[in-house]
Amino acid sequence: MSNKYNAVTDQIVERLVEIVGEKYVLYGDAEKLEPFSHDEVAESQYAHMPDCVVRPESTEQIAAIMSLANDERIPVTPRGAGSGLSGGAVPVHGGIVLLCDRMNRILEIDRENLTVTVQPGLVTNEINDALSQYGLFYAGYPMSLETCYVGGNVAENAGGGKAVKYGVTGRYVLGLELVTPTGEIVRLGGKLVKDVTGYNLLQLMVGSEGTLGVFTEITLKLMPLPKSSVDLLVLFRTAKEAISAVPTIMTAGGIIPTAIEFMDQSSVRASCEYLNESIPYQDAGAMLLITVDGAHEQQVEREYESIGELCLENGAIEVYVADNYTTSERIWKVRRNIAEAFKVVSPHQSLEDVVVPIAAIPDMVDGLGEISGRHEVQIPCYGHAGDGNLHATPVMNPAWTLDEWHEKLPRIMEDMYKLTHSLGGMISGEHGIGHKRKKYMNFVVPEASLEMMRAVKRALDPNNILNPGKIVDVNDAS
Amino acid sequence: MSNKYNAVTDQIVERLVEIVGEKYVLYGDAEKLEPFSHDEVAESQYAHMPDCVVRPESTEQIAAIMSLANDERIPVTPRGAGSGLSGGAVPVHGGIVLLCDRMNRILEIDRENLTVTVQPGLVTNEINDALSQYGLFYAGYPMSLETCYVGGNVAENAGGGKAVKYGVTGRYVLGLELVTPTGEIVRLGGKLVKDVTGYNLLQLMVGSEGTLGVFTEITLKLMPLPKSSVDLLVLFRTAKEAISAVPTIMTAGGIIPTAIEFMDQSSVRASCEYLNESIPYQDAGAMLLITVDGAHEQQVEREYESIGELCLENGAIEVYVADNYTTSERIWKVRRNIAEAFKVVSPHQSLEDVVVPIAAIPDMVDGLGEISGRHEVQIPCYGHAGDGNLHATPVMNPAWTLDEWHEKLPRIMEDMYKLTHSLGGMISGEHGIGHKRKKYMNFVVPEASLEMMRAVKRALDPNNILNPGKIVDVNDAS
Repeated sequence: MSNKYNAVTDQIVERLVEIVGEKYVLYGDAEKLEPFSHDEVAESQYAHMPDCVVRPESTEQIAAIMSLANDERIPVTPRGAGSGLSGGAVPVHGGIVLLCDRMNRILEIDRENLTVTVQPGLVTNEINDALSQYGLFYAGYPMSLETCYVGGNVAENAGGGKAVKYGVTGRYVLGLELVTPTGEIVRLGGKLVKDVTGYNLLQLMVGSEGTLGVFTEITLKLMPLPKSSVDLLVLFRTAKEAISAVPTIMTAGGIIPTAIEFMDQSSVRASCEYLNESIPYQDAGAMLLITVDGAHEQQVEREYESIGELCLENGAIEVYVADNYTTSERIWKVRRNIAEAFKVVSPHQSLEDVVVPIAAIPDMVDGLGEISGRHEVQIPCYGHAGDGNLHATPVMNPAWTLDEWHEKLPRIMEDMYKLTHSLGGMISGEHGIGHKRKKYMNFVVPEASLEMMRAVKRALDPNNILNPGKIVDVNDAS
Repeated sequence: MSNKYNAVTDQIVERLVEIVGEKYVLYGDAEKLEPFSHDEVAESQYAHMPDCVVRPESTEQIAAIMSLANDERIPVTPRGAGSGLSGGAVPVHGGIVLLCDRMNRILEIDRENLTVTVQPGLVTNEINDALSQYGLFYAGYPMSLETCYVGGNVAENAGGGKAVKYGVTGRYVLGLELVTPTGEIVRLGGKLVKDVTGYNLLQLMVGSEGTLGVFTEITLKLMPLPKSSVDLLVLFRTAKEAISAVPTIMTAGGIIPTAIEFMDQSSVRASCEYLNESIPYQDAGAMLLITVDGAHEQQVEREYESIGELCLENGAIEVYVADNYTTSERIWKVRRNIAEAFKVVSPHQSLEDVVVPIAAIPDMVDGLGEISGRHEVQIPCYGHAGDGNLHATPVMNPAWTLDEWHEKLPRIMEDMYKLTHSLGGMISGEHGIGHKRKKYMNFVVPEASLEMMRAVKRALDPNNILNPGKIVDVNDAS
């Protein structure tokens, strides 16, 4: 398909320089371009070099770039912090990488309307740093929040650690300014908590992985900062016991916790070693990290006590309470760094992101054990158990050659995805499809739905210019 | 545009009879067809007779009907209870009305996954009637919940009385089975609280007003039923004072109420007369109905006391507490029946549905007063103030002839929509665009966005068969 695109010539580079300035165009220097050939996906097979990288500073510059690229049939791949886990920001057909790092400002904190408007290149964590003084917060909490950009969160509809109670990124996106694949500037939504004025293009854009529009301004909904928050670290003998308690915690107590994170022993150990940290009892077979927050201390106390009791009735061997920021942050840091730690421990691994109905997670863990045994591969597991979203991570058997790993991994992933599908699940809860999972889409999504996705992509990007080769292939685009 | 469609011939009727059975095809009887020529929009200019009405009982029958209609180029308009307020279920190009009243079952209550799966023709209120025994509830609460169908709620992305805290219908739609305009059966989503496996077609379908697919099964997310709920009836001297308190209630207390409903004096009076009800102090200039709910009585008590104090500090003359079901239901019934009551009082009126940022609602009320004065027309006002969503309702001046009203109303609506736009608002918060507001779309939605909507419609309904003439016109569909 890539042969229908044109190359980035010196003339094109000149025109890009005219748009953003010479300093902000990287071209012809393989060493400088290399970091933009991949994201955080470990496998090098998903990497691809861009022809050039441009770093616009305004909506108008992005519109000019898209217009040029559309006229000249050059693919454009938007990129944020490059912290993605599906190859979404990788320019698989070469062309232009459009880097949003210079558009990193908070444009407005509107305390009267409970909104914040930001540029896409802002580091997610900086939003709440700026808001806490006003007693407000943004509920998005991806595990990479210290490095990822909010534009990427919206493009991937990022989940994260607080989605059980607060939902995922899309719930908080009220407005978007974006540049279309043909270079037009469009505003969708606004500072409105409800709006049915036409099709919901706003939520179609959320999670579209940079294939339908380049976001240039994002308006997010804010909430009152909970005045009280407590974390429980709940230890279990086995992974199965821990995960089996989750559906009960979700349904029996009549309480919606903020988070229920699951970590098996190998996950906790890897992250603690990586951070040189020791959290209590890292030698338990598995643990749940459960957060409860609310406006009143007594209410939070009642809720965490009630959840703690439920855990003990359902096989927990110990419940530790972290009720101050320092201890909570230590535990959450261990949780947040598992993915990074595994990459150091085992560079040859595949971080997966399956999501199943919450009642099916014990069966999922059983099934993963069976796949692990059959393929003689370790599959450490952690993730957002309260959402049914598990980061099962097949790790190369040290006895294998790299060729064997590359040969066997697709079979392992196929088995995992078939298992997920049989339990009513999907192959990505929050990391996205991108380049990496595209070939597996038909394991879980019927052809009629795939064709609807292709039809939408063709309708909104007639020349297949914007981040082509992601989510679905649009075969007959011309 | 309608001339490109074919007529419903006797042969077509025969084939429809083959699909659903003779008993379930209405044809050739104008009196029986008439109720399907309009919804709850008062103005008769938006009515249009169908050629026939079919009442399928299964997904397969709907697929067969759509396939036939697509092949024969006959428009199909899906219809639920007909309680819509934008002409969305009116067959403006004639053809087939596809009535979902026989598909009215609860298919599954899944207590382990906290979901309910229903057919589209189920009356919304019956969901919670069935769930309360399990301590669960569905958070959708449209004002017409005693009559409307849940399929219509999803098609319109209905808002309602609890959206301040719980959000609108779309937040709870986890899965859909639907029939496409070309007659294919597609499933989107599932019992999954997060899912980024491809484009968010699910939320594109929500609020698409029956123009992109006919919903045949709907999976909704459930929550633990709040154990405690209290309503405050807060009286103010004037509408302006009442509405001006809303942004403060939303932001100053750090509490998210379940509901903040606004009713001006004429709204309360009309509804009380209609119901032969008297709620305390209906003679106040305006009132807010504020609900607080939660898992713990003490917490709810603290929150409603805190909100009550805020109201008194911000101009309220009295705060009444309704802390039992009977009293609460009496007050809410008055609120729910305002629209019905106004239709009896003044058959010539236009129920509007503008939505603005919450901080802009005092300016909106001021602006409506100005428009009311300039056009010499009464505009009673009520609605979901906590969402910035106001049902301003111009009512024909009794001194005018009907012709004068029809001549003047478009000018009044244009002024209202321009005012809304100038405040950062949109023309529909929950009732939808349908037939009635289509011609006003370009007051608030730029051409580039309208073209994106048209492109999506063309992509998913190439023959413009499904509910044509709603939201946007697709001029070059062929």
